[in-house]
Amino acid sequence: MSFVTTEQHHRIDSTLPIDPESLQTPYVMIDLARTKRNIHHMTTTLQNISPQVTLRPHIKTHKLPQLAKMQLAAGAIGITCAKLAEAEVMAAAGINDIFIGYPLIGKLRLQRAAKLLQAGVRLIVAVDSLEGAQQLSRAASIHHVTFEIRLEIETGLRRTGVTQEQVVALALQIATLKGIHITGIFTYKGAVLAEKPTTDLAAAGKEESDIMIKVAAALREAGIAIQDISVGSTPSALHAASTEGVTEVRPGTYIFYDRMQAAYGVCQLEDCSALLWATIVSRPAPDRIIIDTGSKSLAADIQPQQDQLFLHGFGHIVGDADAIIERMNEEHGMVTVRPEATYAIGDRISIIPNHICTTINLHNFVYVKDEDGKLYQWNVAARGLVY
Amino acid sequence: MSFVTTEQHHRIDSTLPIDPESLQTPYVMIDLARTKRNIHHMTTTLQNISPQVTLRPHIKTHKLPQLAKMQLAAGAIGITCAKLAEAEVMAAAGINDIFIGYPLIGKLRLQRAAKLLQAGVRLIVAVDSLEGAQQLSRAASIHHVTFEIRLEIETGLRRTGVTQEQVVALALQIATLKGIHITGIFTYKGAVLAEKPTTDLAAAGKEESDIMIKVAAALREAGIAIQDISVGSTPSALHAASTEGVTEVRPGTYIFYDRMQAAYGVCQLEDCSALLWATIVSRPAPDRIIIDTGSKSLAADIQPQQDQLFLHGFGHIVGDADAIIERMNEEHGMVTVRPEATYAIGDRISIIPNHICTTINLHNFVYVKDEDGKLYQWNVAARGLVY
Repeated sequence: MSFVTTEQHHRIDSTLPIDPESLQTPYVMIDLARTKRNIHHMTTTLQNISPQVTLRPHIKTHKLPQLAKMQLAAGAIGITCAKLAEAEVMAAAGINDIFIGYPLIGKLRLQRAAKLLQAGVRLIVAVDSLEGAQQLSRAASIHHVTFEIRLEIETGLRRTGVTQEQVVALALQIATLKGIHITGIFTYKGAVLAEKPTTDLAAAGKEESDIMIKVAAALREAGIAIQDISVGSTPSALHAASTEGVTEVRPGTYIFYDRMQAAYGVCQLEDCSALLWATIVSRPAPDRIIIDTGSKSLAADIQPQQDQLFLHGFGHIVGDADAIIERMNEEHGMVTVRPEATYAIGDRISIIPNHICTTINLHNFVYVKDEDGKLYQWNVAARGLVY
Repeated sequence: MSFVTTEQHHRIDSTLPIDPESLQTPYVMIDLARTKRNIHHMTTTLQNISPQVTLRPHIKTHKLPQLAKMQLAAGAIGITCAKLAEAEVMAAAGINDIFIGYPLIGKLRLQRAAKLLQAGVRLIVAVDSLEGAQQLSRAASIHHVTFEIRLEIETGLRRTGVTQEQVVALALQIATLKGIHITGIFTYKGAVLAEKPTTDLAAAGKEESDIMIKVAAALREAGIAIQDISVGSTPSALHAASTEGVTEVRPGTYIFYDRMQAAYGVCQLEDCSALLWATIVSRPAPDRIIIDTGSKSLAADIQPQQDQLFLHGFGHIVGDADAIIERMNEEHGMVTVRPEATYAIGDRISIIPNHICTTINLHNFVYVKDEDGKLYQWNVAARGLVY
């Protein structure tokens, strides 16, 4: 018996348009016209305000080679990935300028990175420790490659990254290692996802860039030829880019936006182009509906009332600002609604997720509505390959 | 160029043992001996204390046909699934007694459910509304099947489920519909995952069962022949089973347990049999390490300090009770450690996740260590098929 389709099992894209009637909730629907508008907006705004700054979008938001190629066609110089599996999927699709903004630690990872270089991909990798650089240097020798690296700088998020105070000493040690070549520095400050999120995005972007310019100057003074100064997330990119000396920005979420970005004023809710659709499966009380999505299909990492913005619930229900997705179990979304609201069992609703990056990560497939209204099923090719 | 292996792309199990050196973090490792002990413990304890109560484990925890079959071989009477896709995967693997504890709403879902019945699977489905029952009745007529149904009873979780006050009237309406046959009632009270978690599991289990016995009596008095009274989650199952009249329990997490269950005293940390392994990729400060797992590979739905137990961090690092996974981004885990702790970049650590069900859901594959120490890669067959 086979109840699982070949497409589901082998995770391949649909080649012909699919019947809208075949869609079953919960599913992510991507509005391609809106998505292209978001791509266009970031690309052209950046060109207008800071023509010297290049765009290297982070593809961890969508994990789809099709969309990465649209970002490149619109003017991006390359892409950013969070991990090797994403880079491998993108390289297999023909994308050949990739920055992995994460320390690559471990023999097998470095072997895989070397394989990408050997295949002709321009791969830039992240370093934030001497040990990490030494591992790269050893792998370079074993696999006969040279790694282009960027040093990650700590600018306030307290995760990976070397501090301003330590960076020059570290860079000088790294510069003595063979097989690696420092060409830049990068940071992720994360205005919205920061430990203490800020709503003053202009100030956050400027602060981030100012630190980086200072670090680059110190490194150059020490004899390290820093070419690339790479900064910025979706909320801060356009602000961070306006500081002289910055060469590149790496926003990711802007391709779809999400409720968190809208809450921070980065976009309007109407700009959000990837929606989760769900079905009302129960209305056990006049003020409560239950929808067929929970923490296994709608990301729970950005929880309600976790920061000063007090996002109400786990997502915004399109067309009903009063509805609050108060709680989620794995497959249940508990939504408080106005008792007089006319929700019926079987009705479908669409939700703007709090965080689209982690929501897409829960789905094998997304559904794409193109400008002609035709629907396609796309395999989220880089999803689930966790390492 | 192909950087993605056939196994990764087509999501198939490894047939031969794999090399432990080939494992790359983050990955979930299942200790099979410990898992079998957990299966055995639940099965035999239940048989000892309540021999008349059958076990129908919830497979949403693991989503693996291999483990579902072990649960059946150990004495389970059938399985519980959260959604049709899980039931389809399990049926395709030969499992033929399945309860889906979730309202099936929508024509396509009901068509798929009918297909399972037509293939000879004993499929029991959940109903908590007249509209849901009417949809089932219509589908039964179209597809020439009869649906065996259980009414879901609300016992305090305020999600799906009909209240004690309304259940008799609803059941009498449903009993007039053709093509459906009420054979039981079920509930999920969720002692641990409840809105207001309780640590008095015995009281929670008894309360749950007492309500259900009362509901069954009222329904029988009204002429509805209730055979099955199905209750219980991992924390409450053994308590709920000891009430006379209960016929079935449906725990899920007990197969692996997790940190949340240990915190509630349901198991010891040492019983947890599915661990997430991660690599230390950075130690930017003496009291902070960064690990290569975040909300895309370690579930973030059970967040620190969300209830009275105040779980510290997103998981327990095995062997270091002082380490706290304070924050997570998508690929970064920020861990506070004792400054004198000897963590080095490249070291691997293992983590007992707060919630194993949603963690497994993030991985295409898990790795299984059998009793001989051999390693296998198993495709999480029902993962990612969200509807």
